[in-house]
Amino acid sequence: MSFKVVCTKCNNPRKNEMEWKCNCGAPFKVVLYDKFKKDKIIKSIYSIWRYRNFYPYVKKEKIVSLGEGWTPLVKVKNNLWLKLEYLMPTGSFKDRGSSVLISGLLSELSNVKSFSEDSSGNAGASMAAYCAKAGVKIRVFVPEKTSGPKILQIASYGAQIFKVNGSREEVSAKAQEMSKEYTYIGHAWHPYFRDGIRTLAYEVAEQTNWKLFERVYLPVSSGTLLLGFMEGLRHMCISNVINSIPKVVASQTTQVSPVYRKLKNLHYSPPSEVKTVADALVNSNPPLLEEMTKIMKEMDGDAEVVNEEEIIKASILLARNGFYVEPSAAVAFAAYLKHLNENLIKKDEKTLIILTGIGLKTHFT
Amino acid sequence: MSFKVVCTKCNNPRKNEMEWKCNCGAPFKVVLYDKFKKDKIIKSIYSIWRYRNFYPYVKKEKIVSLGEGWTPLVKVKNNLWLKLEYLMPTGSFKDRGSSVLISGLLSELSNVKSFSEDSSGNAGASMAAYCAKAGVKIRVFVPEKTSGPKILQIASYGAQIFKVNGSREEVSAKAQEMSKEYTYIGHAWHPYFRDGIRTLAYEVAEQTNWKLFERVYLPVSSGTLLLGFMEGLRHMCISNVINSIPKVVASQTTQVSPVYRKLKNLHYSPPSEVKTVADALVNSNPPLLEEMTKIMKEMDGDAEVVNEEEIIKASILLARNGFYVEPSAAVAFAAYLKHLNENLIKKDEKTLIILTGIGLKTHFT
Repeated sequence: MSFKVVCTKCNNPRKNEMEWKCNCGAPFKVVLYDKFKKDKIIKSIYSIWRYRNFYPYVKKEKIVSLGEGWTPLVKVKNNLWLKLEYLMPTGSFKDRGSSVLISGLLSELSNVKSFSEDSSGNAGASMAAYCAKAGVKIRVFVPEKTSGPKILQIASYGAQIFKVNGSREEVSAKAQEMSKEYTYIGHAWHPYFRDGIRTLAYEVAEQTNWKLFERVYLPVSSGTLLLGFMEGLRHMCISNVINSIPKVVASQTTQVSPVYRKLKNLHYSPPSEVKTVADALVNSNPPLLEEMTKIMKEMDGDAEVVNEEEIIKASILLARNGFYVEPSAAVAFAAYLKHLNENLIKKDEKTLIILTGIGLKTHFT
Repeated sequence: MSFKVVCTKCNNPRKNEMEWKCNCGAPFKVVLYDKFKKDKIIKSIYSIWRYRNFYPYVKKEKIVSLGEGWTPLVKVKNNLWLKLEYLMPTGSFKDRGSSVLISGLLSELSNVKSFSEDSSGNAGASMAAYCAKAGVKIRVFVPEKTSGPKILQIASYGAQIFKVNGSREEVSAKAQEMSKEYTYIGHAWHPYFRDGIRTLAYEVAEQTNWKLFERVYLPVSSGTLLLGFMEGLRHMCISNVINSIPKVVASQTTQVSPVYRKLKNLHYSPPSEVKTVADALVNSNPPLLEEMTKIMKEMDGDAEVVNEEEIIKASILLARNGFYVEPSAAVAFAAYLKHLNENLIKKDEKTLIILTGIGLKTHFT
């Protein structure tokens, strides 16, 4: 299987594996040349690495795995399923990205010493865990308001933590500043991270016997989940493995809603300070915004926003049914409830909610 | 498939499904009459319910599932594997027991209104989640010292929480007192709960292609994990599905070590107050003690104790390798490290550590 890494904007190829953004300022992306084939799945492996043959830049012997993937898909009522991405090694879907990114970097770089990453918490914890497994040092830059359990978790893996007083963008800038000493692998930028999320689409397709859902709700902040999932769908679709693409609904908070606003042609001015229970969805100016709106238009996606009250209500309703997720994860369910209430979902539409982060990550009740 | 429920001591049958202990004071157990057969596994289901055919008291349409089971089995070094039971719907292995218990009760009882349970935290959270899914009320009695995240989690599922100032036994007594109004389903007593843990043995056997480990380390408190796992092993062994039984090492803390002490013929007087980072292992007088020592002798098991320093060291070592578990879970790994250090483990002995609870359940770093 062959691939290339090119700029999402000017299409220029990445010059070397240490580059994390193009000279033009835009992020890179992975382009695959080969089709998805069912017989290339390694059925004896129950992690994302059953799809290892679709990751040409990862060497088998360099794989860093903590048992990520093959998460439960649970039917909760007629036409409604939940994908429990919070039952991942570090408690969030990010492990798909981290496992692929760290494995890819170790495959390509011969002398890896130390990384730096910025995160609102979950990606930082995930990267810290995979770096711990790989025996590589990492510095994680987080917003000052990051939840206590997330900070403790990152520290437990042995990562160095730097709290930054400022916006999510300022946190990124701090991590990038260090990039001479520490290789910057910011998950919102690095193409391998979101490329790892393709496995989620493959997995859902396989778990439904290749008859996918008609609607999928997922939370969106930096866009790695959305883009990775949609690229996975696209890969299977052009390979004739699935017949149709679900309507993917990018779910955001009213405060942090750049994707929703851009897709609906509405002006967006982010609040000077974000105050939300959904503390994992705070990226009001994601570097992948253009990519997100492009793929959403191409693949007929939709977007929705929910307010704090709706998020809290959705969190409680999920927990009261046995699904304990962090508020940021409940945002997707809140968007679903809103659409249900507004009769935007047909009665027989098979719907999937992707639940991204575990409830134990926050102090919220 | 047929079965009976009898007293572990006097062998008298359970008179009705509401009885939680025998008149003689001993706990009940499930006795299965039929053999384990590989072709009875439902291979399309990736939860404990792929083994549904080995649970004759559960009706298919009464199953309460949150996606429990089929957890990752990760090789970490030559001859060492970890079973990530902490990646369960509520963050601990207890979900195997709760799912089977609640499903079994709903199958047998026609008019279930409300349950009561006592727990140091994890079982309470698990039972609360499955009761939430089933739409049944539950009262959970916990020790006053139960960790904050566990209390929050139990409350989130909508359970009523009662904090009891006293020993673990006094907590049980309080829950049992209520048993007129609320059906008492204490996990340390109810035979269906630990019977659900059989699935762990089946799963590990299936994931290793029926070539089991030579050693298994697991933490022991009330004994449900130990007994359920060993009954599963026994079931497969007498059914000729596996050829040999691993040496199972019951791992306890020096403070709470009734099983270790009884097995080694040492006197045990529990401390007046238990002070340990392993807050899930605080049952110093478990009702299943006789059952545990009996099966350990029959199946050539072993036991070990570790002190606070060893537990903390093991917790940190696991986290520094990407496995973030609660200290109680690290007790099994600490016992393994102790045996390794004492040269009690042969170089080529394939060993499994069962990691029971997620690190996010505690504030420990």
